[in-house]
Amino acid sequence: MEKPTLPKGTRDFGPLSMSKRQFILDHIRAVFQKFGFQPLETPAMENLSVLTGKYGEEGDQLLYKVLNSGDFLKDITEKQLIDRNYRSLLPAIAEKGLRYDLTVPFARYVVMNRHEITLPFKRFQIQPVWRADRPQKGRYREFIQCDADVIGTESVVSEMDIILMIRDVFARLGIRSYSINVNHRDILAGIASVIQAGQQTAALFTAMDKLDKIGIDGVRNELSHAGFANKQTDRLFEMINSPGSNREKLTYFQGIFGPNGSGKKGTEELTHILELLSRYGSDEEHIEIDLALARGLSYYTGAIFEVKIDNVAVGSVSGGGRYDNLTQAFGSKESLPGVGISFGVDRIFDAMTELELFPGVARKTASVLICHVDEQSMSHGLDVLRRIREAGQSAEIYPETGKLKKQLDYANKKSIAYAVVIGPDEMQSGLLAIKNMETGEQKKLTLDEIIHSLHP
Amino acid sequence: MEKPTLPKGTRDFGPLSMSKRQFILDHIRAVFQKFGFQPLETPAMENLSVLTGKYGEEGDQLLYKVLNSGDFLKDITEKQLIDRNYRSLLPAIAEKGLRYDLTVPFARYVVMNRHEITLPFKRFQIQPVWRADRPQKGRYREFIQCDADVIGTESVVSEMDIILMIRDVFARLGIRSYSINVNHRDILAGIASVIQAGQQTAALFTAMDKLDKIGIDGVRNELSHAGFANKQTDRLFEMINSPGSNREKLTYFQGIFGPNGSGKKGTEELTHILELLSRYGSDEEHIEIDLALARGLSYYTGAIFEVKIDNVAVGSVSGGGRYDNLTQAFGSKESLPGVGISFGVDRIFDAMTELELFPGVARKTASVLICHVDEQSMSHGLDVLRRIREAGQSAEIYPETGKLKKQLDYANKKSIAYAVVIGPDEMQSGLLAIKNMETGEQKKLTLDEIIHSLHP
Repeated sequence: MEKPTLPKGTRDFGPLSMSKRQFILDHIRAVFQKFGFQPLETPAMENLSVLTGKYGEEGDQLLYKVLNSGDFLKDITEKQLIDRNYRSLLPAIAEKGLRYDLTVPFARYVVMNRHEITLPFKRFQIQPVWRADRPQKGRYREFIQCDADVIGTESVVSEMDIILMIRDVFARLGIRSYSINVNHRDILAGIASVIQAGQQTAALFTAMDKLDKIGIDGVRNELSHAGFANKQTDRLFEMINSPGSNREKLTYFQGIFGPNGSGKKGTEELTHILELLSRYGSDEEHIEIDLALARGLSYYTGAIFEVKIDNVAVGSVSGGGRYDNLTQAFGSKESLPGVGISFGVDRIFDAMTELELFPGVARKTASVLICHVDEQSMSHGLDVLRRIREAGQSAEIYPETGKLKKQLDYANKKSIAYAVVIGPDEMQSGLLAIKNMETGEQKKLTLDEIIHSLHP
Repeated sequence: MEKPTLPKGTRDFGPLSMSKRQFILDHIRAVFQKFGFQPLETPAMENLSVLTGKYGEEGDQLLYKVLNSGDFLKDITEKQLIDRNYRSLLPAIAEKGLRYDLTVPFARYVVMNRHEITLPFKRFQIQPVWRADRPQKGRYREFIQCDADVIGTESVVSEMDIILMIRDVFARLGIRSYSINVNHRDILAGIASVIQAGQQTAALFTAMDKLDKIGIDGVRNELSHAGFANKQTDRLFEMINSPGSNREKLTYFQGIFGPNGSGKKGTEELTHILELLSRYGSDEEHIEIDLALARGLSYYTGAIFEVKIDNVAVGSVSGGGRYDNLTQAFGSKESLPGVGISFGVDRIFDAMTELELFPGVARKTASVLICHVDEQSMSHGLDVLRRIREAGQSAEIYPETGKLKKQLDYANKKSIAYAVVIGPDEMQSGLLAIKNMETGEQKKLTLDEIIHSLHP
């Protein structure tokens, strides 16, 4: 029989990577809760009617579809079969799909439970999502998203909280060099208006979004192909490369946009967010107003965020922004503006590994292994085991009698901190041997002394 | 547009049920770790070659299959299409499925990572599983399993630890009236041999397994249909209804089985487990040797366990047992005996709700809401917010200016413990109003006093 394999783009997480991942997730969850966000979980499978059409045509292709149970062919006509048109066959044989992100299920939840929800509704959600994407470094077919969203308020206090949460998470994780790039969709619209992009606005934003990857020349080239004149492109780069502090940039753009037009609202809102931060008693550390940030052609309508860690090539590790009416797609007539942030745990994991920021994260394992040399000492060890566990320590006994070397080897490989060794001498004297598995140091202590020396 | 719906048999978990569920999961995880089990997570999708054939024919039907991406019809012949045989079409259009339990993925993991694993390997795994079962009360199509398994040792120290873990979990959850039913596959074989069940052993166990549901008369009836004589059935019930303590039952069976045959090993092993518990310094509380317990036709080969909570009709909430060679199915030639336990979180949740055991579980929410009456007091509130958060408390500010009643209503509905109300008087005097949202009690305190009165 062939060795079993994992589906491409998926991974197992063994004990060591689980401990590191849990370290990241626990901190993100703690920050979300500290800021008043409440937990939500939705099912992995959603009806395809909920998922389809929400992520663009490309997104629909990347949805995993779950085959209907039983005879999935029973309602299919012969003509449909022979046509071999898999796209038109799909809705007939698959009603459900795996969730693609946490935002659409959240909007679906809000619409379905609108009457029990108090606005503004602040929820966080930490669950895996699935995408039938081509797997590559840092891109998986199953990965965890950590989202926090506020829905039902236009107040940019939420944007302030998002910036504070990002800084709190990164401080807890020990990541010191990073930037929170901030822009506003209305500023982008203002820029498009100033350079008279006209019908080419979408092409403009798509090109700007690639600045990080393809550089200024690449963007110039792409814009030229899209029909932009050099004069327009020059003006664009003059604007997005405007020097100075965040406040100076915003003042400069207020001058350019003038008192009317869409750009005005954007500069005002970003100024207001910085103002709120200052009243909160905080500074602008890590914040960079980045006029080139566009975040694709997504549903954002207000402020947008993206976080990049310095000196690692993993791309953006967190992103989000303000959107209007996410629930509209589900027929909600009520206007429910919202703003959200998403942390990419897999990329944060990769970045922290590269920056060697996991030294303090201990593998989740027992603190103590009880070792023994024969049936009698093993029997005595059971009583020692109970007393150590009753003192609040995690502990296990080597389950078989056998060579001490094998038992210590087990403790070592499992990163267990202490081995308590029991033999005839120890049983007689009441002094047990305790070995620090890291330093190799060994002492003889009473059980009470051992329990006392292990801090729970 | 129609209101969106959830797939049948799946559920959303809003803030309140999430807090309760998390309460259960946190305790189970803590107990697993205290006993030296280490975390593992595997992907939701597995290759169908891994899943198929592991759960019997019925199980294969209940597997959710994931359609291949892109044109899933491209390698299908016209004949295959017109044949309309969905079973034979399946392997060609779906390579992957959703995991059905955590045991098969665990065995797959062990085989794939055999060289990095130190035996005995103790892992726990807490993840959802999916079954295309008919949904009904207490049975869902997506539900969480919490498994702990030891693989690579025949020592029944592991069985002792399983019993201790069950008792530890239930004590932490506040469940006091329950029984841990224990039996052994070899005792069942011994009973079958004593009543000369011959080729009808499987029918015998299947009928015995239903004793709880259909009663003695039901089992008698079923056995009679299967061809058992009344004399055989009488002898069966005489045995499984044998009175006395656990030890007395085992002694009685040792007498019946004699020094040979398969029954002997079973009684000896159960006696040994009770003996280990006594050496550990524990008693037999909650343990019931139950000679009728069969646990279906599953892969168990040694001791078997099942936990039932008294006075609730949710069925068994936990079960497990010893098995041989789970990795054999993946071509492993090495013999890897193991033993495991699985906690059914959904049923424990239902039982605890019915028994009203969730009073102490607070909804995960902010501790403090900052309320305000105008722009100035809101601005002042931002500084208060920072200081409360810096003191380690979870806190939020109502993000919009507006009626105080609406703000207090928000705190109330979100179960926030305290509201700090800031108005012009409070800003001038430095004494802030703090309201206990549960009791309605209100005080005027300085910010330092407020921070001091909130225990982190």
